Amino acid sequence: MEEARPVRWRATLEYDGAGFAGWQTQPDHRTVQDVVEATLATLVQHPVAVTPSGRTDAGVHAEAQVISFDLLVPRTSDAIRDGLNARLPLDVACIDAQIAPEGFHARHWVLRKRYRYTFLARRPRSALIANRAWHVRTPLDVPAMLRAAQVLLGRHDMSSFRAHGCGATHPVRMIEELSLVEDGELVHLVVVGNGFLRHMVRNIAGTLVQVGHGRRPESWVGEVLAARDRHAAGPTAPAHALTLAEVVYGEGPAPWKDDGAD
Amino acid sequence: MEEARPVRWRATLEYDGAGFAGWQTQPDHRTVQDVVEATLATLVQHPVAVTPSGRTDAGVHAEAQVISFDLLVPRTSDAIRDGLNARLPLDVACIDAQIAPEGFHARHWVLRKRYRYTFLARRPRSALIANRAWHVRTPLDVPAMLRAAQVLLGRHDMSSFRAHGCGATHPVRMIEELSLVEDGELVHLVVVGNGFLRHMVRNIAGTLVQVGHGRRPESWVGEVLAARDRHAAGPTAPAHALTLAEVVYGEGPAPWKDDGAD
Repeated sequence: MEEARPVRWRATLEYDGAGFAGWQTQPDHRTVQDVVEATLATLVQHPVAVTPSGRTDAGVHAEAQVISFDLLVPRTSDAIRDGLNARLPLDVACIDAQIAPEGFHARHWVLRKRYRYTFLARRPRSALIANRAWHVRTPLDVPAMLRAAQVLLGRHDMSSFRAHGCGATHPVRMIEELSLVEDGELVHLVVVGNGFLRHMVRNIAGTLVQVGHGRRPESWVGEVLAARDRHAAGPTAPAHALTLAEVVYGEGPAPWKDDGAD
Repeated sequence: MEEARPVRWRATLEYDGAGFAGWQTQPDHRTVQDVVEATLATLVQHPVAVTPSGRTDAGVHAEAQVISFDLLVPRTSDAIRDGLNARLPLDVACIDAQIAPEGFHARHWVLRKRYRYTFLARRPRSALIANRAWHVRTPLDVPAMLRAAQVLLGRHDMSSFRAHGCGATHPVRMIEELSLVEDGELVHLVVVGNGFLRHMVRNIAGTLVQVGHGRRPESWVGEVLAARDRHAAGPTAPAHALTLAEVVYGEGPAPWKDDGAD
């Protein structure tokens, strides 16, 4: 019997992070990776190892996490997507599944990612978005936060916004876009970059809130960045308000994706 | 000891309908009314009966349900709002609490209400908004739905959109505004009216979808309305995609609020 030639696939997942101990498989915890790999294996009747665009922490949501994996059996895109949606638990869905270009790798080929961090700036808590926004209680000076954040744009050593235990071999990342969008009592911090260190968006969020609440001057964010020291920045903002919103790919591996970082 | 003179209050509640068997108290079911009345009683140390702007069905959400109730003890607005938020379960929150004008009644004084019904028009299901949108799978012809819906604007006998068991004494309601807002793959049907019969918005949603999917011509909605017969309309759309978004009050009782309807 001839051995099946593996075919590389790319799929996009949506998940609600509230019920997961994050992306990565862990003993005795429910993780997105375990749920997706187990469901794919049931669907195609062989073990499947899945590579994400990057790991997400416990509580973090995804509107469009991208994964790559190999299948040994022929299937249509519709069969994979609809088969996953019929079998996956309700807090994970497959938005799209396609045969990928030769050699596609969901992490190595990332050109940029977009994250959204959502603040709820009002005194009463919310019943409807309790698991999707950080309840900061007092109003945010959004224009001040935006002015303060300008120093983060571009290519910088982001050590001040890097969590202890981050596996990346170097701390330089490019922030291509950083915006703050007001939507009633919600404020969305949107960060687009070529890669993200562990807790980087949450540490930026926790730092900008200090400015938004007037506890630190706008110039402080530049000092934090220059310090290249995690202790200089604000506290890490909670995970449940963070969503991986988009992953954009190039035509091949990105040159900076050689260091094991997300 | 002098008897306390009751003070009429007005409060605004937000709730996620997923965990409730609707607003109204029922034996052996978790309802918003029971949870709010029990929490208020704990807070003020006397029994409190709460009147809503209207009942919501099982699964229906509220961004701004308004209630009236009497308190026998003096309290500040902040104490009631923050006290409720500290004690209510996480799927109910109090957005605002104020002493109300003399004689205020959360149902009788309603001038208009705004409901939002949300469709998710794409083939894959959603993990993040599974409990907030009706997954209709195929694209909706939104301009056709909007044209078809124009006949519903104004004052009409809404018997065709009225659920069996509706307690209203007459079926005439005024729809002041009806819009369809596209937001990516979401479509929001927004209906503003002076009052709503039981399942009225859900029956309108279920009827307009027939047009949006091309199964019925635009002119059919006028025929449904003219029939004054529930059997003429489309199926009732599911509750979990409906949100009570706003309740607007006048300076006193509205003249049409004498018939027990929501």
